[in-house]
Amino acid sequence: MPTASSLTEARAAIRAGTWVRHTSGVADDHVQGNVVILPQALADDFLRYCQRNPKPCPVLAVSEVGVPMLAQLGADIDIRTDVPRYRVWRHGEVVDEPTDVTRYWRDDLVTFVLGCSFSFEQALLDSGLALRHVSEGKNVAMYRTNIETAAAGPFQGPMVVSMRPLRAAAAIRAIQITSRFPHVHGAPVHIGDPALIGIRELTRPDYGDAVDVLPDELPVFWACGVTPQAAITQARPEFCITHAPGAMLITDLLNHQLASF
Amino acid sequence: MPTASSLTEARAAIRAGTWVRHTSGVADDHVQGNVVILPQALADDFLRYCQRNPKPCPVLAVSEVGVPMLAQLGADIDIRTDVPRYRVWRHGEVVDEPTDVTRYWRDDLVTFVLGCSFSFEQALLDSGLALRHVSEGKNVAMYRTNIETAAAGPFQGPMVVSMRPLRAAAAIRAIQITSRFPHVHGAPVHIGDPALIGIRELTRPDYGDAVDVLPDELPVFWACGVTPQAAITQARPEFCITHAPGAMLITDLLNHQLASF
Repeated sequence: MPTASSLTEARAAIRAGTWVRHTSGVADDHVQGNVVILPQALADDFLRYCQRNPKPCPVLAVSEVGVPMLAQLGADIDIRTDVPRYRVWRHGEVVDEPTDVTRYWRDDLVTFVLGCSFSFEQALLDSGLALRHVSEGKNVAMYRTNIETAAAGPFQGPMVVSMRPLRAAAAIRAIQITSRFPHVHGAPVHIGDPALIGIRELTRPDYGDAVDVLPDELPVFWACGVTPQAAITQARPEFCITHAPGAMLITDLLNHQLASF
Repeated sequence: MPTASSLTEARAAIRAGTWVRHTSGVADDHVQGNVVILPQALADDFLRYCQRNPKPCPVLAVSEVGVPMLAQLGADIDIRTDVPRYRVWRHGEVVDEPTDVTRYWRDDLVTFVLGCSFSFEQALLDSGLALRHVSEGKNVAMYRTNIETAAAGPFQGPMVVSMRPLRAAAAIRAIQITSRFPHVHGAPVHIGDPALIGIRELTRPDYGDAVDVLPDELPVFWACGVTPQAAITQARPEFCITHAPGAMLITDLLNHQLASF
């Protein structure tokens, strides 16, 4: 599948199980989302967790109970088949990584779709900024921080951030651009010294791939949609489903539709 | 004069020569401006210099030739009397610092008023950010950089910047806020390592007063309206008048009117 594929091609390939990996650059005008699917008994707590932590957990859509369709995000989306790769969790451990969760579906499941930095990355690239992990074909570097999220029910834990190294003028421009996208993490949460948010070694990310930070660059940190997966690890729900990191739901929405001004 | 004085009180005191010092915090809802008054023969070059360097030299108004009134900025402004303290320059040297330039007025003079960071400082304070130089009652620290301005005619030279130390989250917020004010220097031009823009020692500003930069803070640098005074030093016009640094023209415009969104 070419990276600048159409939405129709991309969704068909993902649904057919022929595209099973990360979606960076796929149907790149379209909003992609982090996915969390939980039993109804935990859904209210999780929604309050998102409300209290809007930078890492910006909610794009919540499904009806037991309904796998997400009409707000696309007329024909079926959350059971339209993510390239899933993680199935039991008691906080990943027990399966299938490309289709139809056989795991339950009538009590509620789907949450959260904004993803792929949307603002496209805006950064469109503005002529270079992103090292993109040019090197890597996943973005992600780190657990010492910034505690606000708890709700069993959900709590550290904020996870993604890091992109930028020269100062580009960092300032990136802050302006991402401020326009509050539904996909918005402006950075930190810039500069990683130790101030509890990150010891930039060369050893907790998720994704390391990239160099050059002497004339600042590391710039955005809240990351992997944060709820860290909260799930701590909450240990008896059952839940997420996307596999980087393998996102591609929606019908356009990234430009999310810009706030 | 109380710092939260009314515009009417402030202008009357300045015009009467009873307020002869810096205007930080004076009539603080109102736009203040840097002033450059040049012979007509140099005015075209200076206007092109401003057009090419909009971050340090954002033009709020240009007068008619020989006319000391500035109706765009205030119905009764007379530029000969309404700045608290002036600098009179001959061949690039300051030869007088009067509180009234009526006796220096010439029929060939053109007045330029350029935006001033006092406008965005008010917006920063209104948002709950603390500015160390304000809380310590100092003038802001200003530095000549190795960023060359774009030349026009005889006008050229280094960009001058003002520096405010902020913690990372406050720096990000300050970038958002000042981006709304392109007519008063807009977003910062640099953040972080001063050496990258040719500043050797933060403790020794070229203009204004030094403030501490704490270990958990970043120095944030904005283009500064003192830049044209550095250009005048290099251009050495036979005659010109500016405001004395910090002693600004107070206009009828409201800071809120300058916000771009």
